[in-house]
Formats: sequence, structure tokens, C-alpha cells
Amino acid sequence: MVIKTAKEISKMVKDTIDELNEKEVQEFMDKVIHSRTIFIVGAGRSGLVGKAFAMRLMHLGFRVYVVGETITPSVKPGDLLIAISGSGKTASTLTVVKTAKKLKTTVATITSYDNSPIAKLSDCVVKIKGRKRGELKRDYISGQLTGAHEPLTPLGSLFELSTMVFLDSVITKLMKLYEEDERDLKKRHSNL
Amino acid sequence: MVIKTAKEISKMVKDTIDELNEKEVQEFMDKVIHSRTIFIVGAGRSGLVGKAFAMRLMHLGFRVYVVGETITPSVKPGDLLIAISGSGKTASTLTVVKTAKKLKTTVATITSYDNSPIAKLSDCVVKIKGRKRGELKRDYISGQLTGAHEPLTPLGSLFELSTMVFLDSVITKLMKLYEEDERDLKKRHSNL
Amino acid sequence: MVIKTAKEISKMVKDTIDELNEKEVQEFMDKVIHSRTIFIVGAGRSGLVGKAFAMRLMHLGFRVYVVGETITPSVKPGDLLIAISGSGKTASTLTVVKTAKKLKTTVATITSYDNSPIAKLSDCVVKIKGRKRGELKRDYISGQLTGAHEPLTPLGSLFELSTMVFLDSVITKLMKLYEEDERDLKKRHSNL
Amino acid sequence: MVIKTAKEISKMVKDTIDELNEKEVQEFMDKVIHSRTIFIVGAGRSGLVGKAFAMRLMHLGFRVYVVGETITPSVKPGDLLIAISGSGKTASTLTVVKTAKKLKTTVATITSYDNSPIAKLSDCVVKIKGRKRGELKRDYISGQLTGAHEPLTPLGSLFELSTMVFLDSVITKLMKLYEEDERDLKKRHSNL
Repeated sequence: MVIKTAKEISKMVKDTIDELNEKEVQEFMDKVIHSRTIFIVGAGRSGLVGKAFAMRLMHLGFRVYVVGETITPSVKPGDLLIAISGSGKTASTLTVVKTAKKLKTTVATITSYDNSPIAKLSDCVVKIKGRKRGELKRDYISGQLTGAHEPLTPLGSLFELSTMVFLDSVITKLMKLYEEDERDLKKRHSNL
Repeated sequence: MVIKTAKEISKMVKDTIDELNEKEVQEFMDKVIHSRTIFIVGAGRSGLVGKAFAMRLMHLGFRVYVVGETITPSVKPGDLLIAISGSGKTASTLTVVKTAKKLKTTVATITSYDNSPIAKLSDCVVKIKGRKRGELKRDYISGQLTGAHEPLTPLGSLFELSTMVFLDSVITKLMKLYEEDERDLKKRHSNL
Repeated sequence: MVIKTAKEISKMVKDTIDELNEKEVQEFMDKVIHSRTIFIVGAGRSGLVGKAFAMRLMHLGFRVYVVGETITPSVKPGDLLIAISGSGKTASTLTVVKTAKKLKTTVATITSYDNSPIAKLSDCVVKIKGRKRGELKRDYISGQLTGAHEPLTPLGSLFELSTMVFLDSVITKLMKLYEEDERDLKKRHSNL
Repeated sequence: MVIKTAKEISKMVKDTIDELNEKEVQEFMDKVIHSRTIFIVGAGRSGLVGKAFAMRLMHLGFRVYVVGETITPSVKPGDLLIAISGSGKTASTLTVVKTAKKLKTTVATITSYDNSPIAKLSDCVVKIKGRKRGELKRDYISGQLTGAHEPLTPLGSLFELSTMVFLDSVITKLMKLYEEDERDLKKRHSNL
């Protein structure tokens, strides 16, 4: 049953990818290429997917940092912040995006909700649909949860998987653009 | 072009999932269910995929820890270590697996190479094919890299993506088994 | 010269400890002891000091989590959040404290400024003086920095070192209270 | 009682600092200054202290990385690895040091035991005494622990605190050497 489910999930990822907007993707690529330094932020599994992208950008020779890691320096003019948040309203990510805008940093966001607080603050948005059945919402006071049940990919799983596939295809594109092959990446890959 | 590549990559993930071995998957599920506490280890992007799985296991109510994080305690008899390593020979992961075996911990490994050092030490293995064209090898002394070029999914990307889909389908199965729905997961989801 | 400076710094730490308020420390201890689960938050080096404390609490058998780590669950009634922030206004920490208060979590803060935004939201505060010469402030728009220069312990260094010594003495006290000796701690210490 | 203990612990840190060897410290400083890139490794609380040092080195403009973090690249000739291990035999740290030596990386180690496996592989060692009463040893098979009890600073606490004070005094020295003041550090300090 697990394998059958895995097939269904990979089909769902493919369907999600099918709905990507060409223009949004192009704008995202432009921001990535025309940045001095790239910073990446995300909470939970979105943050992990962001780190997986950051690692490959480093392998490609980009100057890239993850917000919150030890040696992440200050943002400067011309830098790009990539924010990843399925709901577009994760509190910690929103705080970082707000500060980034105060510091005049360009913000590119990947989210399922392009009218969300984070999306609205962003210079460009790539919309990646996640949940099929309406966002699950929690009331802070009562603790009640509302929204239709998502049985195969609970919470943000579909968004996170699709975002990882999308960002890996951005890497493939950048490899062609910079004429870097796998061996070049491997040379920069952590060896300790 | 990015979207086209993303589609090809999601197709490759689906094909990789198709080659999963039913018996291996069943054995892995059995270990996960019959463990007192689960520890997860992996380096780089494999480690990130492991963390994404650990997070969902916590949402499901499992007692789970990531090796190297702050509040990870000691392993005890009956505990399970899940090791994720595409090559099956990542030095840091191998060190942890060796120690785990000395401490009589059960080890379940996800790898592309079932005759690798880590796989050989493991109690069960789920083989997830990654590279299509032969492993890229680096000679420690000369620094030379050999192996055929993998243009769409460099280094371990296909392994990592497929492993994440596989582990998310394990989560779906566990949700059914424990009769936990998305709202139950959300209640345990970090809210700070 | 390095050793001479190290001696001066350890003297400064001792002087900072001398100014701790007995009543504040007692209240902090009470909160730590009377909590179901403890969550710890801090940015940068304050966060690292918080993790060092969390690790020892785990060694002592406490249920403790670091905000932002993989397997950190949701806070529940009766839980304690310990916030560490020298300035008392670190944006990411403030965001977490605000959410914690909405969720009716008890907050105990360690800071140099007991009239800071984070301190004001907290149920109890331990004041640990850091800088001797007035806070260094950065204007978001102009980027200008004002405040007197701190030559031996730049930025929050004195606060962070003193906080680590303070929290380690809390551990010593808890060891006596729970009749746990070093060997008991070692048994829970990560062994992978 | 907590404050009294904190004073005793800060006195113990000062005494530990008093025993630092001038020549060892000088050699450590030389390695730090004459390196292309610095990598830092340590497990548990030693790792946290290493990260606190890495953060300040970044604030000073050094090119520095923590082994295991997302964007840590490969080591190259002329790079320095700083290893922190109280016992000098932590398995994960030892694995990294062994690989570093294979790759001809210079290794500078901070440890309490200068005849330990990690110390023996290192190009220079700074000895920082930690435990006063003999190392606590655990037998992997029987699980038995031997060694005299350390009541105020259990396990590696004294080593970790003293190492943090030592490394902060290295930072003070480097600030003078590079004529960087606190405002220069603040400009590089993470602002997101």
C-alpha cells in the first residue's frame, strides 16, 4: 500500500508542477541571477526544502545563506531574500520578510496563497498549489481547527514536495546557464 | 524551460518509486512501528529529508529524534536508527551507524547501494535508486572525479526527492494505521 | 595578551554574576521546576547559550525543546517558554514571545533590559547586565550606529558568557534538588 | 544558592584560564590568522561554543564555516579546521579530523587531553583543563560509568565555559590586530 500511495503522491506532485505559471517562474529566475547574495528563509519543512536549495546554489558557486544559521551575515542593497511558506503567513517568516523590506531587500516568495501577508510584501511570487481542499486553520484562542481533510498529503506536504522539485529544476537550469556540470558541483560539495 | 524540467524530474521520481521493493518497504514499516524511540541520521540533503520525516513522525505522536540536534538523548535497547545515505558510505553517517550497532540498536537504512558499508551493517534496507549513470567518485588524493554525467538531477538529487516522496507515503500509511487525521497532526505541530 | 584578556573577561563575568538579583533567580527556578514542558528560544549567540542549557536539562530528565528545531511540538497549557535576549527586543524572539502569550504560555526571560518589549511581556525576568557602556543601536534607515565602544566584550559577549555561567549554576542546583549526579546525566547524554 | 554557585563556577573558569599555555595560544592565533578559510567542528555543547566563535569570526570579516551547516563548502589547501572536544575522542569529531588530515587540511584542536586521538592528529593543540577529578568513562558494552564525581560543573561544563571565554579573548585580540571595532562587527551582524 505504501508504494501505491507513493505513486499517487508523485502523480500529485506532477499535477502541481503542471500548474506553475511560466511568467512567475521567469521572474523568479531573473531575481536569482541578478542578486549579489541570496538569503533563504522558511519554517519547518518549508525551511528544510529551502536549505536543500541553498546547498545546491552553494555547489553552483552562488553566495547564499540560510537565515538563522551561524555564519549568516547582514543583508546589503542588491541582495535577495527567498521566502518559502505554504500558507504565506507563518509568523517567523513574516517577521523576517517585514525586516527585509525595511532594509530595502528584494523578496521572492514561494507560496500557495498569492494574496497572503507574505506574498503581498514580496517583489515577486511563485504560486505552488499545495492543499486541494482548503487551508486548515487554527483559532489561537479556542484551539479549534477548520478546513477539509487532506488524506494523502497532510498539512503542507504536497506544497513542500512540489517546491523541492521546482527548486531542483531551477538548479538544472542554472547549471546550463553557467555551464557547470555535476563534477563542478561536486568540487564545492562539503567534503568533511 | 524550468517547468518542462520540473515535469521531467517529477516523472523520474515516479519511475524511481515504481522500482521500490514491496518486501523491503514492509520490513521498514515493521521496524518503524515496533520501536520504542526512533533516531534519524543523514548528512547534507539526505539529512534534510530525514528531518522532514522526523517532523511528521512527531506530528503523529512518535518519540523521534534527529542525531546531532540539541535535545537528542541516548539510544536504549529496542530503539531504531534510520540512516539515509544515497551512496551508503557517507563518513559521518557511517560513524553513527557503527556506534549504533555497538550499542545493539536496530538500524534501518535507505540507500541506493545495498552492498555499501552502511547497508551491510544494517538490519534492513530500502533500496531507492538514485543516479541513472553510475556513481560519481572522488579520489581523496588526486581530487579527480569519475562517473558519467547526470544532467537533470545532479549528485544525489533524484535519490533525495524520491526518498522524501517514499517517506511521506509511509506517513500516510501510519496515519491510517493509527487513525490519526490531519487535525490530530496539526495539534502537535509547532505553534511558536 | 590573549590570556591576560581572558582573565579580564572571566573577572567581568564574575562581576556580572555578583549583580544578580536573588529574588529574580528564585522566581526563575520556581518556573523551571513547576512546568510540564520547557521551550527555549533565542537568536544568535543567545540561542546557542539557550541550547547549551536545554541539553543539560535533557540530561537531567526534563522534557525540553528548542524553538525551531525539527521535533519541537506545540506548547500546551502549563508549559514554560524561556526567552534569552540581551537587548530584549530581538525581532524573531519577540515574535515567538508574543505568540506564546497569545497561547497563554508562561514566559521567563533573561535579558539586560527589564523595561524592554520582551521583558514587559514576560511573567518573570532575570536581569543579567551585559554591556557596561550603553546599548549599541542601529538605525534601520540610515544604517548609523550609536553607543559607546565596548572593547573587551563586543556586542552581547558579556551577556552571553554570564548567562551561560548562570544557567550552568541553575543546572547544579537542579542536580542537588533531584538528587541526580553526573553519572545519571551521562546516561541520558547522546551516545550516537 | 544559585548565585553562590555561579560565583564559584566563574572562579573555576578563571582558574582554568590561568593554566593556559602562552606558546600554545600563540600558535593557535598564528593558524587562525594565516588561513584562507576556517572550518569549525565540535559535538554537543563544544559544538555550540564553536558556533559562538564562528559567529564572531564572521562579524570580523573572516571566511568561516561550521561543519554540518547547510552552505558549508569543501575544504581546500591552506584551510584550517578548528576542532573542539573536551575528551579529545568524540567519535563524530574524530571522523571529521581524520578526513581533514587526508585532505591535507591544517587542524588546530582545543581539548583537555593533549594525548587523545584527536590531539595526536592535530597540527597544534590548546589544552584547556576541564574536569578536576578524572574523566568519566562509559563502557559501551556494560554501560558502566567510572570516574570521580564532579559536583559543580558536570561532564564537560567547565571545559565548555572556559573554551568560550578563551575564544572570546581571541576575538578581542583579532579586533585589535585588524583595527576593527564593535561598530564594524555590528555592520556584518545578521539583521534579518
